[in-house]
Amino acid sequence: MHSHLRDIEQLTIVGTGLLGTSIGLGLKAAGYGGRIVGVGRRIETVHRACELGGVDDATTDLAKVLPTSQLVIVAVPLGGFAAVFEEIGRHDHERLFVTDVGSTKQSVLAHARQYLPQPRRFVGSHPMAGSEQQGPEAAHANLFQGKPCVITAEPDSDPRAVATVEALWTMLGMQLLRMSAEEHDAHAAVISHLPHVASVMLVEVAQALGGWEIASTGFRDTTRLASSNPPMRCDIMTNNRQQIVRAIDVYREALNQLRAILERGDDAALLEFLQRNKDAREQWMQGQHHGS
Amino acid sequence: MHSHLRDIEQLTIVGTGLLGTSIGLGLKAAGYGGRIVGVGRRIETVHRACELGGVDDATTDLAKVLPTSQLVIVAVPLGGFAAVFEEIGRHDHERLFVTDVGSTKQSVLAHARQYLPQPRRFVGSHPMAGSEQQGPEAAHANLFQGKPCVITAEPDSDPRAVATVEALWTMLGMQLLRMSAEEHDAHAAVISHLPHVASVMLVEVAQALGGWEIASTGFRDTTRLASSNPPMRCDIMTNNRQQIVRAIDVYREALNQLRAILERGDDAALLEFLQRNKDAREQWMQGQHHGS
Repeated sequence: MHSHLRDIEQLTIVGTGLLGTSIGLGLKAAGYGGRIVGVGRRIETVHRACELGGVDDATTDLAKVLPTSQLVIVAVPLGGFAAVFEEIGRHDHERLFVTDVGSTKQSVLAHARQYLPQPRRFVGSHPMAGSEQQGPEAAHANLFQGKPCVITAEPDSDPRAVATVEALWTMLGMQLLRMSAEEHDAHAAVISHLPHVASVMLVEVAQALGGWEIASTGFRDTTRLASSNPPMRCDIMTNNRQQIVRAIDVYREALNQLRAILERGDDAALLEFLQRNKDAREQWMQGQHHGS
Repeated sequence: MHSHLRDIEQLTIVGTGLLGTSIGLGLKAAGYGGRIVGVGRRIETVHRACELGGVDDATTDLAKVLPTSQLVIVAVPLGGFAAVFEEIGRHDHERLFVTDVGSTKQSVLAHARQYLPQPRRFVGSHPMAGSEQQGPEAAHANLFQGKPCVITAEPDSDPRAVATVEALWTMLGMQLLRMSAEEHDAHAAVISHLPHVASVMLVEVAQALGGWEIASTGFRDTTRLASSNPPMRCDIMTNNRQQIVRAIDVYREALNQLRAILERGDDAALLEFLQRNKDAREQWMQGQHHGS
C-alpha cells in the first residue's frame, strides 16, 4: 500500500453509487488494509454496496462516523454537496482530509470554503471515469484504471492532504494531473460537458426528423452520453454554465464553417477539415492509454 | 443456404476493403457454396482479402469475370461507382444481378440508371455496419450480424433481383428494411452523417480550446466517427449534401434552444429536455438488438 494511505485507518465514502462503490472495490482489490465505511441517504443503496464488497460498513449517519475517519470522499451528485460539506464542517477534526469526485470543481471548492473550518484539508479530485449507467450494481474495481484524474490542489492546500488524495487515486491506477479548479472546469466543458450536449442534440434531431429504424453502432456510440442521468447532468450544466455556453459558441461557429463549406461545394476545404480533425484525434488516441 | 442464393454460382465483390471482405467472410461462415471473386484496383489488397479467406479468387480485371458472375456487389468508395457501373454496363448479361453497399442511395441509383442497360436488375443496399477502421485486415465474418440493412427496391425492380439481394443480407444475419432511395438518404443524414459531423465538431472545438489531457471514454466514444476515412466521408457528404445541410439546420436550431435554456437558468426546462432525449434513446436501445 502507498505510504500515504497507511495512516488512513478509516476511509468514509459518502454516496455509494457507481463511483463511490467502485472506489471501495478498487481499493480493496489494490490491497488497502483500512476500514471502508459507506454513507448514503438511502440505506438500501449502501447495503447493496456492502453486499457487493465495496464497503465494510453501511450507515446513513455521517456525523457518527466522521470522528473516527481520516479521509472522506464525497461521491454524491453535485446537488447534494452543500448538505454533506455542512455536516462535515460541523464534525471536522484535525486528522480529517476531505476530497470529492464532483464533475465541476469551482463549485465544490466554493462549498468547501463556505462550510469547512479548515478548507486547507480539502483537496478536490475529478476522476475522469464513469458510465451512462449508475448505482452500485454498475460498479467495478477497474473503473479508474489507466484513466486521468484531475487534482485541484490550491496554493494554500495542506501538503499532507494533497499527498493523501494523490495516493488514493494512484492506488486506483489513475494518471494524475494537477490544475486549478478554473482550468479544470474550462477543460471539462470542452471534452466532457460539450460531448454530452452534442449527444443529446443528435437524439433531439432524430426525434424531429426520424431515421431510428436504420440507426446502428455509429449513432449508438455518439449518443451514449444522452443516456446519462438527467438530474446529475442538470447539476453539472448549472454548475459550469458559463464554460459550457462558451464551448457551445465555439462549436456553433465551427458548425457554421463546415455548413458553409458544404453549401459552396468546396471539396478541397472539406477534405482538409476532415483530415485535420482525424489527425488530431488519432494523435490523442496514440498518446493516451486509458482503459475502455 | 437460402434458396435464392443457390442459383448464384459466382458472386463477384468489387472492392475488397472492410465491407467487401467482411461480406465474403460472412457468406463463407454461413455456408455459401458458390465461388467468390474479389476485384480491386490494387491487386495487393485483393490478394490480402484472399489470404484472409474473404474471397476465392483475386483479380483487377472486372470485365473478365462478369460473364461468369450472377451477382456483383459494388463495395468501392462512392467516388469509384461511376467507373465500376460503366464497366458492368459494358459487360452486362441477362443472368446478372447487381447490388452495392454505398452510404448514399440516390446517387448510386442515378449511376445505375445512367450506365446499366437494364437498371431493373440493380437493387441498392445499405448495410448499416462499419467501423472507423478500414481495409481487409479490419474485416470479420460477424460485421453485419443483427444490424439493419436498407434495401432500396424501386417499383420497377426485377423481383428476382430483389429476392436475391435480400437473400444475401439475410444470410449475413441482417435485419432488412425496404425504403426508397430518397427516404434512405434523409434518414441516413440524421442517424449516420450528422453524428459524423457532430464528432468532427467536438474534435475541432478541442483543438481550439484544449482539454485533451483530461479527455476520457466519453470523448473517445463521441468522437469515434471523426476518425473515419476523410475521402470516403467527403464522398458521402458531397452525395448527400442537401439532406445533411437540412439535418445540420435542425441540429443548430436545437442547440440554440438548449443554449437559451442554459443562459436563462431554466432548470426545469433543462431537466425536461435531457429526460425527454434520454427516454427516446432508451426506447430505441430497447427496440434494437444490433451487435457491437
